Parts: sequence; structure tokens; C-alpha cells
Amino acid sequence: MKFNNRNVQLGTNVRLGKNVRIGDNTTIYDNVEIGDNTIIANDCVIGEPTNAYYFQEGYQNPETVIGANSFVRSHAIIYAGSTFGEGLNTGHRITVREGARFGAHCLISTMVDIQGNSTFGDYCRLYSNVHICEFSTVGSYVFIFPYTIFTNDSRPPSNYCKGPTIGDYTIITVHSVVLPGVTIGSNCLIGANSVVSRDIPDYSFAVGSPAKVARDIREIGSREKEGSQYPWMYNFERGMPWQGIGFEAWSQQQH
Amino acid sequence: MKFNNRNVQLGTNVRLGKNVRIGDNTTIYDNVEIGDNTIIANDCVIGEPTNAYYFQEGYQNPETVIGANSFVRSHAIIYAGSTFGEGLNTGHRITVREGARFGAHCLISTMVDIQGNSTFGDYCRLYSNVHICEFSTVGSYVFIFPYTIFTNDSRPPSNYCKGPTIGDYTIITVHSVVLPGVTIGSNCLIGANSVVSRDIPDYSFAVGSPAKVARDIREIGSREKEGSQYPWMYNFERGMPWQGIGFEAWSQQQH
Amino acid sequence: MKFNNRNVQLGTNVRLGKNVRIGDNTTIYDNVEIGDNTIIANDCVIGEPTNAYYFQEGYQNPETVIGANSFVRSHAIIYAGSTFGEGLNTGHRITVREGARFGAHCLISTMVDIQGNSTFGDYCRLYSNVHICEFSTVGSYVFIFPYTIFTNDSRPPSNYCKGPTIGDYTIITVHSVVLPGVTIGSNCLIGANSVVSRDIPDYSFAVGSPAKVARDIREIGSREKEGSQYPWMYNFERGMPWQGIGFEAWSQQQH
Repeated sequence: MKFNNRNVQLGTNVRLGKNVRIGDNTTIYDNVEIGDNTIIANDCVIGEPTNAYYFQEGYQNPETVIGANSFVRSHAIIYAGSTFGEGLNTGHRITVREGARFGAHCLISTMVDIQGNSTFGDYCRLYSNVHICEFSTVGSYVFIFPYTIFTNDSRPPSNYCKGPTIGDYTIITVHSVVLPGVTIGSNCLIGANSVVSRDIPDYSFAVGSPAKVARDIREIGSREKEGSQYPWMYNFERGMPWQGIGFEAWSQQQH
Repeated sequence: MKFNNRNVQLGTNVRLGKNVRIGDNTTIYDNVEIGDNTIIANDCVIGEPTNAYYFQEGYQNPETVIGANSFVRSHAIIYAGSTFGEGLNTGHRITVREGARFGAHCLISTMVDIQGNSTFGDYCRLYSNVHICEFSTVGSYVFIFPYTIFTNDSRPPSNYCKGPTIGDYTIITVHSVVLPGVTIGSNCLIGANSVVSRDIPDYSFAVGSPAKVARDIREIGSREKEGSQYPWMYNFERGMPWQGIGFEAWSQQQH
Repeated sequence: MKFNNRNVQLGTNVRLGKNVRIGDNTTIYDNVEIGDNTIIANDCVIGEPTNAYYFQEGYQNPETVIGANSFVRSHAIIYAGSTFGEGLNTGHRITVREGARFGAHCLISTMVDIQGNSTFGDYCRLYSNVHICEFSTVGSYVFIFPYTIFTNDSRPPSNYCKGPTIGDYTIITVHSVVLPGVTIGSNCLIGANSVVSRDIPDYSFAVGSPAKVARDIREIGSREKEGSQYPWMYNFERGMPWQGIGFEAWSQQQH
């Protein structure tokens, strides 16, 4: 039942790499590039046009790029004008608006809603139902857990919008809100159900509504071994580029 | 690739206005009226029948009305027995149950979930993943931001359900909960991650869990100019009927 | 317009009971059993294969079982390797991953997201947008209200995951978080927007972030009659097995 090319529709200038597979009922609009070995599953929409498509003569769909070795699960809606590095992995029913830029090896889980015009580094993990507002900037190796949302308008509704900025290796846990213009540093941990209303310095564990720094993340013990759990990269490697060699050895290779 | 009439299915007594366009893979059930110039995008279901359709002989689908100049984006599910004034604009994957009544020029964003049997005025804006329980009453020019939910059962599960009531021009920000039977007045602002458990008087800024009135909204400064940001209508006009002339001039025209 | 067998695809070893109806645009993968009189509505995916399907030769889809007299509404995604007792009732766009085991007569509402490898008793009610992490254990007659989520990793990201455990007859209201490894007893009530970080004893009403026991549930008055609302089974019977005879008489029949 794999890839029968049933009810598939491809626009013009759709450039498919080697061994790309497209699922049933999937629509790919104009000007989309998909890298080698990528799977686009059933019922997806890739390169969804913006409004102008429906109302303007001569509309040209902006370019959409999905990197090689990616897996886009079913019912994704990805707008034209977004780019994804290699190794993208998605859950079901994601929505990504125009102007989103993802690095390599990112995870975008089920029902994640990216409002577009935002940038993400490499190896980001956005879990179920995360909502990212426009004008957000997210570093690399950032985990954002379910139902956490970013906001960009501190006096809604207004014309002054500024999204959050998140540093590398930071973990934002479930059901939290990051308020407009806030910067969370690198190597932070944000507790469940927090509202982050002020900047958070590097290496902080912050929690609450409004979120306050409770302690240094390096003081948080592990459940699996003696010593600290954070920075987490020394204790977790599944799916990370340091898998098999450890973070320390990998870090040294990067120099 | 626009509107190829591919895998489209129309029921009986589907009344389409002039220049209505229906996307691929869309199903429109019986007894649906769609106004002039409206676009129903791909993969939508309009007039989704209630349970009785599947189990009762002679089931008649209640009437569904979508006003003129509307744009329903892909993967919407709109039940039979709901009505929408002209200029409806939706995101993707909305779900609207039976008995919802929307005024004109409303926005219903991606993944919004309307449980039905509720009324909304004109120019309401429901952003991503807002959830509205049955028996809610929402005024006009009301903004409800992502992941905010309304509830109607104060002793769940019970047989005594009463939804919230929201006054005109009120703004409810992200990740908040409005508890059963609560009335939020007009011109209010509710802060992020609040639980509104008691009635809130007009012109209040309330925040917290439970939400308490922190100050009058007219004391909240603008980020864009000298003076107060609220009432917001004097500072924001995009998509509003006073766009181009300002709220004050428009208000005078209404009398 | 019912059941035209339009754009339906069935895999091998799909075992349909008597009077099973399958909606348009629905895909049923290999090795799925569906009980008598069950309706699978339009645009569903039943038996969605795990990753190995796409990458391994000779992949065998695990068995999926949906009990008799069930109604799966449109746009459901149910992975292979999950089982559901009779009388399953779902909303739209549910996602259930592999290894979920549901008892009989459960409700899984619109956009519920079950991460799999979890068990549920009979007559559970999961309302809109509930998110259940892996390794959760939920009793019978448990109600979980919208946007509540379960979590399983107390030091994210780590390799040590343990889900929550919920006792029979417990009610968890909206927008709450249950933290990893927490046990909520039977006959509890959790208030809106709570974060449950410690075990909660039977018959407790707990609320807050972190949730604290506020009082015994038997001290919470009813809105409909004199006396206590909880345990709720004496005051609510819609859809429950004691409907028509009352909880007390039904309980005695069970012995």
C-alpha cells in the first residue's frame, strides 16, 4: 500500500531528488525542491500558497526547500517560502507558515503550529502542539515540550510585535508561555506551566508565573547517575550528533 | 493547480453564490448555502452531519450558511446548523460544531475548536487552538489569543452547564481559562495564563490564577506612542471597520 | 452521500465485522480488525504503520483492533498495534500512536493526542486536545478535560521516563499538567490549570501550581441539589453503565 501515486498532484517546477517518495492524496504546489531519499507521506500539502495565489493574477509561488533524508508524516501543511535543512522529521498535522527557516535534523511533532518568519538552528525538537509566533529566533539543540507557546505582542492588538529569542541547548518544558521580546539564554531549563516575562540568564532553571530563577541548572541532580543532570548533553545523546562518542569528544571535534 | 474539481463531492440543495470556488477533496453535505465570491479551499468538510445522519432514516441535514466574500482555508470541518456572516476568514483545520452563530468578518484561526451552540458578534478574532465550549456568548471586536479555553461545567461531570459571556472590545490573551458562567465585561484585558473564576468589570486588566483585577486598562501605556494603549481601538485598525478613518470618526458614523 | 467507497483503500488481512461502514478517502492498512456495526468515517487512517514500514523489507504491520459498535469520526490517525474495546467513540482528528490499549466505551475527543504504550480502563472520557504521554496508566470512569497533558520525563531530555497513574472515577479538569511518575488516587478532582507534582490521595480535591489538596471531594456541594456533588457517580449517569438504574443499584449488580 506504499506510494501508489493515487490522487497525487504536483505543480510546476517541482524538483524531486533521487528516491523521493510521495504519499497518496498529497499536493505539492509550484516551485518546491525536495532532497534525495526524502519521504512525504500521505495527505500532505507542500508549498501551500499565501493569499495572493487566490486573488492576484501572475502570482509566483515562493520557493520551498525540504532537505535530503527527511520524513514528513501525514497531513502536514507547509507553506511556500519555508526552508528545512536535511534530516527533517515531522509528526502528523503540522502547520508551518511562510518564511520559517529550520536548520538540519529538526523534529516538528504532531500538531505543531509555526506562524512563520522565524528561524531555528540545528537539532531543535518541537514536541506536540508547540506554537511558535512570528519573529522568533531559536538556537540549536533546543527542546520545546508540548503546548508551550511563544508570543510576540505585549499590548495586543498592536502594531509592535517582537518574538522571543532562545539560546542553544535550552529546554522549555510543557504548557509554558514565553512573552514578547524575552530572551532566554543558553543552557536554561524552564519548568512546567511557567510564564517567562523577563530575560533569563544562561544556565538558569526558572519556573513560575511569572518565571523566576530558582537555581543554577548544574545544581539539578540526575535520576540515572550520581551528579548533575544538566547540562543535559553529557547525559543524553539519542538522535544527537554526539551519539556514540559523547558530547565532550564531539565538542572537541568541532574545533 | 487551483480548483480542478478533483474529488469534490456536493450534496443536494447546495446553493453556491456567484464566483464561489471549491477546492479539491472537499465535501459539501446537503442544505448548505455559500455566499458570492467565497473560497472553500481543499480538503474541507462543510455541513458535517450530526450523529443522527448515521443512525436515523429520513435524517434532514440542518441548514449551514457561510456568508459572501469568505475564505475557508484547508481541512476545515464545519458542522451542519452553523451560520457565519460575510467576510469569514479561517485558518487550517478548524472544527466548528452545530449551532454556532458568527457575525460578520470573524477570524477563526488554525485548529480552533468551537463546540457549538454559541454566539459571536462581528469582527471577532479567535487565534490558533482557541477552544470555545457550548453555551458561550461573545460580543463584537473580541480577540481571544492562542490556547485559551472556555468551560461550562463547574462541577464536572454534571448536568448543569453554563458558558462564559464576554463583552465587546475585550482581549483575552494566551493560555487562559474562563470558568463556567463567568462574565467578563467590555473593554477588558486578561493576562497570559490566567484562570478567570469571577466576573470582571468593564475596563479591567485582570491576571493570575485566580485572575484578579490589577488595574484599569486605561492606565496601561503604549509601546508605540505617548499615552495609553487601551482602549485599543484608538491605536489599532488593521482589518477593523474603522481602518483608514480611525475609531472615533467611525464611532460617530454609527450613530 | 454516505459511504460511496470513493477513494477508499484497504490493505491485506483487513477483517471487517458485519455492517461495518467505511467513509470516503479512508485508508486501512494491513492487519486491522473492526468489530460489527462500527463506523469509520471519512478521511481516516487506521493501522498507520510505524517507521519500519518505510525502511525495512518484510515489515509486518502489528495488529490493530477496534471493537464493535464504535464510531470513529473523520480524520482520525490510529497507529497499528493499538486496541480499543467495544463502543469506542471519537471526535475528529485524533492521533493514537502504537501500543495504546483502551477498554470499552471510551471517548477520545477532537484533536486528542495519545503517544502510545499506555493503558486505559473502561468508560474513560478524554476531551478536546488532551495529550497523554507514553507509559501512562489510567483507570476506569476517568474524565480528563481539554488541554490537560501528562508528562513522563522529569529531567528532560533523559532516558528515564515514567508516566502518571490515575485511579478510577477521577476527574482532571482543564489546562492541567500531571508530572512524571505521579499517582493520582481514585475519586479525585483536580482543579483548572493545576500542575500535579506529587501523589494525590483518594477522594482529594487538589488545585494549584504545584497542586495542593484543598479539601475532601465529599465536601464540595452540588449545583443541582442539596448535598455533595462528589463522588459524581451518584449525580451523573449520561453514557455510564448505571444510566437508568443509578450508581448504587448498578454497583450492587457488579458483585
